[in-house]
Parts: sequence; C-alpha cells; structure tokens
Amino acid sequence: MQIGFIGLGNMGSAMVRNLLKAGHDVAVWNRSPDKAQALVAEGAKNVATPAEAAQGAVVHTMLADDKAVEAVTFGVDGILSGPGTAIHVSHSTISLALAERLAQGHADHGSTLLSAPVFGRPAAAEAAKLFIAAAGPAAALVTCQPLFDAIGQKTFAIGDYAPAANLVKLCGNFTILSVIETLAEAMTLAEKGGVPKAKLLEVLTGTLFGAPVYHTYGNILVDEAFRPAGFAAPLGLKDMNLVSEAATDARVPMPVLAILRDHLLSTIAREGDDIDWSGIGRIIAADAGL
Amino acid sequence: MQIGFIGLGNMGSAMVRNLLKAGHDVAVWNRSPDKAQALVAEGAKNVATPAEAAQGAVVHTMLADDKAVEAVTFGVDGILSGPGTAIHVSHSTISLALAERLAQGHADHGSTLLSAPVFGRPAAAEAAKLFIAAAGPAAALVTCQPLFDAIGQKTFAIGDYAPAANLVKLCGNFTILSVIETLAEAMTLAEKGGVPKAKLLEVLTGTLFGAPVYHTYGNILVDEAFRPAGFAAPLGLKDMNLVSEAATDARVPMPVLAILRDHLLSTIAREGDDIDWSGIGRIIAADAGL
Amino acid sequence: MQIGFIGLGNMGSAMVRNLLKAGHDVAVWNRSPDKAQALVAEGAKNVATPAEAAQGAVVHTMLADDKAVEAVTFGVDGILSGPGTAIHVSHSTISLALAERLAQGHADHGSTLLSAPVFGRPAAAEAAKLFIAAAGPAAALVTCQPLFDAIGQKTFAIGDYAPAANLVKLCGNFTILSVIETLAEAMTLAEKGGVPKAKLLEVLTGTLFGAPVYHTYGNILVDEAFRPAGFAAPLGLKDMNLVSEAATDARVPMPVLAILRDHLLSTIAREGDDIDWSGIGRIIAADAGL
Amino acid sequence: MQIGFIGLGNMGSAMVRNLLKAGHDVAVWNRSPDKAQALVAEGAKNVATPAEAAQGAVVHTMLADDKAVEAVTFGVDGILSGPGTAIHVSHSTISLALAERLAQGHADHGSTLLSAPVFGRPAAAEAAKLFIAAAGPAAALVTCQPLFDAIGQKTFAIGDYAPAANLVKLCGNFTILSVIETLAEAMTLAEKGGVPKAKLLEVLTGTLFGAPVYHTYGNILVDEAFRPAGFAAPLGLKDMNLVSEAATDARVPMPVLAILRDHLLSTIAREGDDIDWSGIGRIIAADAGL
Repeated sequence: MQIGFIGLGNMGSAMVRNLLKAGHDVAVWNRSPDKAQALVAEGAKNVATPAEAAQGAVVHTMLADDKAVEAVTFGVDGILSGPGTAIHVSHSTISLALAERLAQGHADHGSTLLSAPVFGRPAAAEAAKLFIAAAGPAAALVTCQPLFDAIGQKTFAIGDYAPAANLVKLCGNFTILSVIETLAEAMTLAEKGGVPKAKLLEVLTGTLFGAPVYHTYGNILVDEAFRPAGFAAPLGLKDMNLVSEAATDARVPMPVLAILRDHLLSTIAREGDDIDWSGIGRIIAADAGL
Repeated sequence: MQIGFIGLGNMGSAMVRNLLKAGHDVAVWNRSPDKAQALVAEGAKNVATPAEAAQGAVVHTMLADDKAVEAVTFGVDGILSGPGTAIHVSHSTISLALAERLAQGHADHGSTLLSAPVFGRPAAAEAAKLFIAAAGPAAALVTCQPLFDAIGQKTFAIGDYAPAANLVKLCGNFTILSVIETLAEAMTLAEKGGVPKAKLLEVLTGTLFGAPVYHTYGNILVDEAFRPAGFAAPLGLKDMNLVSEAATDARVPMPVLAILRDHLLSTIAREGDDIDWSGIGRIIAADAGL
Repeated sequence: MQIGFIGLGNMGSAMVRNLLKAGHDVAVWNRSPDKAQALVAEGAKNVATPAEAAQGAVVHTMLADDKAVEAVTFGVDGILSGPGTAIHVSHSTISLALAERLAQGHADHGSTLLSAPVFGRPAAAEAAKLFIAAAGPAAALVTCQPLFDAIGQKTFAIGDYAPAANLVKLCGNFTILSVIETLAEAMTLAEKGGVPKAKLLEVLTGTLFGAPVYHTYGNILVDEAFRPAGFAAPLGLKDMNLVSEAATDARVPMPVLAILRDHLLSTIAREGDDIDWSGIGRIIAADAGL
Repeated sequence: MQIGFIGLGNMGSAMVRNLLKAGHDVAVWNRSPDKAQALVAEGAKNVATPAEAAQGAVVHTMLADDKAVEAVTFGVDGILSGPGTAIHVSHSTISLALAERLAQGHADHGSTLLSAPVFGRPAAAEAAKLFIAAAGPAAALVTCQPLFDAIGQKTFAIGDYAPAANLVKLCGNFTILSVIETLAEAMTLAEKGGVPKAKLLEVLTGTLFGAPVYHTYGNILVDEAFRPAGFAAPLGLKDMNLVSEAATDARVPMPVLAILRDHLLSTIAREGDDIDWSGIGRIIAADAGL
C-alpha cells in the first residue's frame, strides 16, 4: 500500500521498519529530518511536508503530544491542507478533546480519522508485537488491518467513534500507573515489616497477579531501577493530566488518579525530570521514612 | 499424621476433606458442632475442646477473625491450656499484633507457631488449589509441608518470623481490592465516554493485565454481580482495617488504602452488609452519577 | 478619574455604582448591552467596544472566565487594540497562565497590568466592602488606590508581579472550599453519632473557628440551603481547576484539592449544574448513607 | 465542694489550681506522685488511690489516653471500686467506645458519668479560659457548672448522652488539623509561585479567616516553629486514629481525615516523635521539593 508516516522517534521508526518489511511503500516525514535519513536507507521515501506524506491511501502519525499532532494535521502544509482522500491513522496518546477535533476536521475535509493508539514499549514496536486499540469507521478499519498486522500482535476494535480508542488508551495508562502505586505502597509496608520487596513480589506474581505489568514494574521497584527512564515521569504526568481532563469533562471522580498525579508531581519536584514514571515508588518509600 | 483442625466454615471444611484424603488423622473442633458432624462421616474425629484438637503433632486454625483465634488459643480449654507439644498452623487472616502475641505465647509455652494464611476462594480450597504463604521456624515448616501439599497448589516460604506471612497476606488482599478500585474507576470513565465496560476489560486483559484477578473481578464489575457476596464488604473492611493498623504501627502512609477503606464504608452505608467487597464499584459509578 | 469598566454582572454593576458614587467618570461596556443601560441612568457612559472603554486612565475588567478576559483584551477592538496608555485593572479570577500573558501583553504594548481580584459576594460589592488583593507596578498601585477605596474595605498589596495576586485569590478560594469540605465531613460524623449539625457548628464557631467563612457556610450546611446557588458548583469547579493547573505547573501536590475537585464533579454529576458549590456537603452526607 | 482530681500533667495541674482558687477542696492523685506534692503546697490534699479521690461529690480525670482512663476507672483501687456516689467528670480526649463503656460502668455502679473534654492549650488552662463541651444527665451538669466556671470561659451543653461530648471534641481536633493541612498546601503553592507564606496568611486572616486557629497555626507554619512541640505529632496521630475509629464504626467516609493521618505518619517517620502535629507542613513542603 502507498502510505505515509509522520513522527520518527523510537516508536515510530520501529513501526516504519515493520511496515517496510511487510512490503508497503512508506513516505516518511519528521520535524528533525535526520531521523528520516536512516529510514531512507531501508527503503522509505523522505518527503518535505506532512501534506506530502498524506498523499497515499493512509497516513500514520506517531507523535509526542497534542501540540505536535495538531501542528501536522491543522498547520501549514499539514495533513488537512492538501486534497486529502487519505485515511489518517493517529497512534499518539492525545487528549479526547483533540481526538474529537481531529475526527471533525477530517469529516469536514472528506477524509477519515482512525484513532489507533498502541500499547507497548520500543522493544515491542521493533518486534512487531504492539497491541493496537483501533476505532473509527468500519470500512477504514478493514482497509488498515494489514497495516496493523504489520506492526502489532493484536488489534482490538473499539467501535466506530475514533476518540473511543484514545479513551481506552488513557484508561490503560491509568491502570498501569495504579499498579505501580499499589505495588509500591504494599512493598513499603512489607519492607518496614521485615518482608523483602522481592519476596512479596514473588508471592503476588505467583498467585493472582501473574500479568506482565506486575513482572515488569515489580522488578523495577525491587531494583529501584528508575534511571535511565523507560517512560519519563513528565510524560507520565502528561498522560495522567489527559486522563484528568477527560474525567473532569465527563464528571467522573477518580480518587486513585488524584494520588497518581500528586505522586508524579512530587517525583518530578524532588527527583527531577529524568526519572521513570515508576519513580513514584521512591516518593512512596521516602514518605514512610525509607 | 495425627493432626487437629479448628474452624470448619466453607474454607476449613474443604481443607479438612483434603487432609483426610491425603491420609491424615484429623481431630476437628468447631464452635457450632453441627459442622463437625458432617466431617465425621468422612473420617474425621470430633473432639470436645480446642485443647483436645491440639493433642497431635500439628493443629490448624482457620477462623473468622482475631477474636476467634484469640479465644481458641488463649481461652479456657484453648490450644495453649494443655501440655502442648504441637505446632500451631494459623491459616486465618489476622492482625500483625495478634500474630506477634501468638508467636510469643507459643514460645513461652514451648510450642511453635507457623503463620500460613491462604490465597483462594472456597472453590480453590475444595480443589486443593490454595496458595499458602508460610512463615515460622524452618524445622516446623519442613514438618508441615506434606500438610500444605494436601491443601494447596504451592507454598511460598516467607521466612522464620511467623507474622511476616500475615503481613504478606494483608498486602495481597490490599492489592486485590486496589485492582477492583482501579478497574471500577477506569470502567466508569470509559462508560461515560461511550466505551462499554466489557470492551475496556477485553483490552486490558488481552494486553498487559492478563492475570486471574483482572478476569475474576473485571467480570463481576461488568455484570454488576455484587450479590450474593463471595466475600462480603464487612469482611473486606475488616481486612483493610488490619492493613491500616499495620501501616499505622509501621508509620507507612498508604493513600490508596485510605480510598479503599472509605469506599467500603460508603458501600456498607449505602448498600448494606450483604454486598460483595467489589460492590465498591457501585459506589464509584454512583459518585459519577451512573 | 476617567475610567472604564468592562463586565457588568452582579459584581461588576455593583462596583461601577460605587465608583460613580465616588465621583469617577465611568465608561462601561458589556457583551450584552442591556446591563449597561441600567448604569447609564445612574451616570455611566455606555461605549461600543472594550477599546473605547480603555481610553481613560484606568480600565477595569470583571468577567466570568479566562476566555472572556482574553477576548476583551487581545480580541478585535480589545483593550490592547488601541493606543493604550491605560492601566488595566483585572478583577477576574483567572488562570496564572493568562495573568502572565496579560502582563506580558501590556508590557509589549507600553501599558500596565494590575491584578486585583476581589474577595466577597455581591452583597459585599454593593456595600463597597470587598477585599482586594492587588499586585503590579508600585506607581500604578498608587494611582489606583482611590478606585480600590471606592469599591472595597481593604486592599492587600501583594507585590509588583501582577500574577501573584491571582495566585493569592486562587489560594483563598481553595481555602474556602476546604473549610466547607471539612465542616461537612465533621458534621456527617457528628450527625451519625447523635450530635446535631447545628450543635457542632455552635461549638466550633464559639471556640477556635469564629471566622465569617465558618458562620456563612456552616449555616448553609446546617440548613442544606444549596439552592439557589450563591456560587454555582460549575464555577467552583472552574476555580479549583485553575488551582490544579497552577499546582501542576509548580509541581505542588495538593491532596485536599484533589478531594475538593472530585466532590465537585460528583455534586455536578448527581445534582446538576444549579447547585451551590457548598453542595459537596450533600455528596459527603450521601456517601455516608444519609 | 469536696472534689477529686486525677491526672496532674500541665493541663490537669492548671485546672486544679483554678479549682482551688475558686474555693473547692480538692483531693488529687497522680500516677507519679511528685506532681501531686507541688499542688499540696497550694492547698490540695494528696490521696493514695483513685478510689480515694472519688470520695467527694465529683471526681475529675484529665489523662493522656484510653488506657490511663480505663485503669483509673475500672482498675484495682479505681474510681468504680469504692462505694461510689460521685459524679465522674471525664475531661480526657478518649475513644467513643471507651466513653460508652464508662457511661455504662457508672450506670451499673449507680454513679454518673459526665464527658467534659476541653478545648485549649496549657496557657488557656492556667488562665481559666478553657472551652468545655459537656454532656451527660442534666442534673449532674447543673451540679458541675460551678466547677466548669472555675476552669473555663464557656461551657457548651451537648446533651444528655455523655459520649456525644467526646465526639464533638474529636470533630474539633479533626477540624484544627484540617486547617493546618489546608494552610500548608496553600502556602506551599504560594511560596513556589513567588508569594511569601506570611503574605498569604495576612490576606487570609484579614478577610474571611480571622479566627484564632488561623492566627496560631498560620504563624507556626510561617515560622516553621515545629519544635518544641506544643502538641506532639504522635498525640495528634492518636487523636486522628480515634476519629478514624469513630468514622469506621459509624460508616462515614472522611477523605480529608485520611490525608491527615497519612501526613502525620509521614511526619513521624521522617522527623521523629518530638515534632508538633503542625509539622505536617514540613512534609507537605518537602513533597513539593521545598
């Protein structure tokens, strides 16, 4: 398929490689162009503007935040500036409010938005093992399924309203951080009571909590491996702020979310910006005098 | 082995049956004696006092709360009233403070306490599929391993300080309820945003959260199957109060625990005593106007 | 003094009347012009645009939210569209971010921003009994003191950085709502324990808590006089969101604030938009089964 | 009147002095007898047991905690061990559960319990300026009014159910600490935003919050005068635990209370036992990186 891909960070570059491997023609664009060069050597075509990247059947975006997505979509030489028959597959973790504006912008323009945020860290992206939560018009989802298959291990169809997939993604990130919070509180209590953190984790993962998120983050907490950051605290804060906005707009009290946000603020205030979001564990331990 | 078993509720009776099947001679005692009769037909020997149940090599207790464990241990005709060479295996979810007093009481008496709380609901007890977190003197743990194998699928050795196993159990129950809380908050946000609860659960369990506790309680929340109670809210509150006491004594702030306690209080106040502890999901939804 | 006044709601109209009484010439502008007419009869001059209102020595704004302040300042025919030698006295409760942009906008324009948010309800505005927290360049504060004296009973000088006054105002509103929250929690406990709410309030205000905010809101809680709203819950939510933004930007965890926000969300979700912000008391009581 | 007084700490000794000044005959008892000696020089009569102190018309107790009150009331040579026609005026801050047991114990014994907890620090006790919340049978309240007048500036009659006065006292202490929490959160936000804490306090106390508790604790927070402790954090924790027990028993969620307890735990864990309960302000600032 003729496609475009905008946003070539660790995640985006890995996804492009897998799309190339699956035989697609990929026009790439990145704000800082050096990242595109590396992919040209592997078969991608570097283009000069987001609008050019959107000339194919589908254009993907995988960007850091609302502002970046907004710029490449609505900005000068943006996706919606051209004739635009493309499907826009938005992989980024963005606000519901922006997802709604994107959907409306595409509807006004005669094009289609699919929201398809992904679950997985860079290693999963490289291995084409991402999970994809996809929502939007059914025909477009069918069209894009081969693309999803090229980058992920499973696609969850969330329905025909694109922002619903963004909401699922936000809920997922909230659930991950709440696991970290809970583990850290329990481990702190255990440790002060004479039970090593690793022992508690062994029991939890060996009984009812044998899911990847407990293994991954449990071990980070046991080893206090908060640096270098796999997912930095300020990015985690950005995501939790998006959840908070969604909850505020929907009038949903979320007391655990409030704790997560406060602990991220404390983590950043006390530890700086370069710590992993699981670094809330350090604050939780410090608040108990450890 | 000649053993005794005190406390013949759903959990205890199932455990006794599996001990009988494994060939042990089991003397049973229960405050209301009718429950013992049913087990006599299956080979148990009914005795008149806790002290008599403690005449064998090991006596197990599986009781509702601190008060009951205290009475059968320290009370008239209690476990510690006799000559007492037995090992006392305490399976109940009790306070750290009581576990410490039990350990001391046995030490003073020349006998041994093992704390061996179990993870699992009655069906797991019947299937001999419990998980056991066991702590106490190493020799006693070796002696009791065949008994643990008769009732459970796996034993986790927590160390030689018996109350440590009780602490692990409290941490486990805290972690379970925090999963319920988090799922309920996320599902409420999802539902108000147009994503069915079952859809969110499918994505979570299909990606990073594929552990039994998410399946079990996720489906209860989706179906709002809060009655009849598998584990009633007042029992959940009792356990969370035990965690809170432990945290207070250890000087460990646990903000998620505070939310869980408050939501259980609200659940009981608004829904009564006969609702499952996962009924906090109903309060969380109601607080969002659902 | 030749001044302008933009925003003629209950608060603004009362302030204009007191400025007229003090002998100032007041050019007024309001988005819906009928409110201006009433004041013309009392000596004000109705003008056609915010820019015209800003032709005098000082222009006041007293508007509902960031959006309104932004529009009259930066918009077409806005305060900054004219030659602009005026001092802009901003009385509205706005975000720190906007206050900073206003200060910068005026600096670029060669004019001056004073932030001068007010404490008090409409009755206090009518009686010229407002409290004013004012910040900005010292010379401008001196110039405006007679205007502050015309509308208020006391002015607090917060310093030369205008947004600091906005921050003080946000802290004040946070403190008010936290008093309501605390009183409602205590009253709910008292009532379930057999102590009438009014009795508890009598003791509190008769001992250590004899401040106006306890009398005012305590009686509202005792009487459950949540409608009609003196300050509607959605406006309270707007303000608490502004505090939350400020706290997020400054990396300050504020756990009580999180509770206030969640309770306002629940109040609006369950009771609608027309309830007073003190209606959080109803949610707190309902969560205890009252 | 012939009376007794048990518990001669700073508060109790000051109260005895004022009772002596008012012309009453006071038999005193204290666990460590040296404190009694000082009062003998001022006219008190030292007795050997609590039971002897209870031979007069009224016996007061002013003790540190439940355990002490329980011992002098129900213990060997305790208040209830003698013939007992006395009225027992209990001034201590104790649990509702103990207050109920005291009331029942006196009823069984043919004597009368009044709960009369006091508001005020040692200086207020010396100046006979305490506030008293008194509850119990009306006739006994009338009898004791001259005694209350000797030690306090005002008595609030809470009704004929003695534990109700204890509940009012617990609500009062909760309200005080919530003021400290709120001020500390607001001051931290202000300070990080460039507004000195003292400036914020000046505005708050100068407008809506002009009550003693804001002056007293606001200045402690401004000066960070957390040592020496006027009311040590562990005592504050004890009181908040009593509130928590009452709230748990009454099924009342109190989310602000949960924050207060967690912050006290953190204060004690990080700062030790010798810090004032207002030291939660240090934790709140530290959590923001100050």
